[in-house]
Amino acid sequence: MSKQRPVLTGTEATGCCSPLAEQPIAAADAADLAAAFKALGDPTRLQLVSLIASHAGGEVCVCDLTPRFAVSGPTISHHLKVLRQAGLIDCERRGTWVYYWAVPAMLTRLAGLLQVPQPAAVR
Amino acid sequence: MSKQRPVLTGTEATGCCSPLAEQPIAAADAADLAAAFKALGDPTRLQLVSLIASHAGGEVCVCDLTPRFAVSGPTISHHLKVLRQAGLIDCERRGTWVYYWAVPAMLTRLAGLLQVPQPAAVR
Repeated sequence: MSKQRPVLTGTEATGCCSPLAEQPIAAADAADLAAAFKALGDPTRLQLVSLIASHAGGEVCVCDLTPRFAVSGPTISHHLKVLRQAGLIDCERRGTWVYYWAVPAMLTRLAGLLQVPQPAAVR
Repeated sequence: MSKQRPVLTGTEATGCCSPLAEQPIAAADAADLAAAFKALGDPTRLQLVSLIASHAGGEVCVCDLTPRFAVSGPTISHHLKVLRQAGLIDCERRGTWVYYWAVPAMLTRLAGLLQVPQPAAVR
């Protein structure tokens, strides 16, 4: 678990990559980024990311997340681990509970990848 | 297969949804959109979308796609089917070959979902 909360905002996304529709993505980047999309490719995980990212104050106690789902606590923990390994969220333990926050740079990186450049979009 | 090429540009994305980081995504929307992210959650499929979306002229013959990958033609066909079912690409048969193009509205919809609203990004 990280001991530091992210300081990046959505405008400070890290390096790679150009939009998918601008130039073909390199194989190495595709392997890296497909893992992040795969993490989002589950309805519960997508809801978790959204609950965490949209939460007032920017972070959520796991104790506030699990009651919102019909699945078990360990299942939620597994989903949170997948999202953390994909770099979409991070967390910190404080006493009994673990607190989660979204990593805006990663969300912005993926959003940039999916953007459709305007000149290319005109058919 | 669709008989019509898309006329939407990237700025004309369809309805739902607010950015994940703006408000919690509804369960029904999460199920729908997770399927699209899952389709992108494979390195070969991510490369295929990028090759198709960035191709000069906006469409690609399947005959130009398969030679670019080490995997078999049927495997590429399977990946293309998954992407089409997710609404990310569409296609049309012309004679011997099938031609593929990206669906910019879907890419834009997913990009919008991942955008980080600026006020919420400042921690």
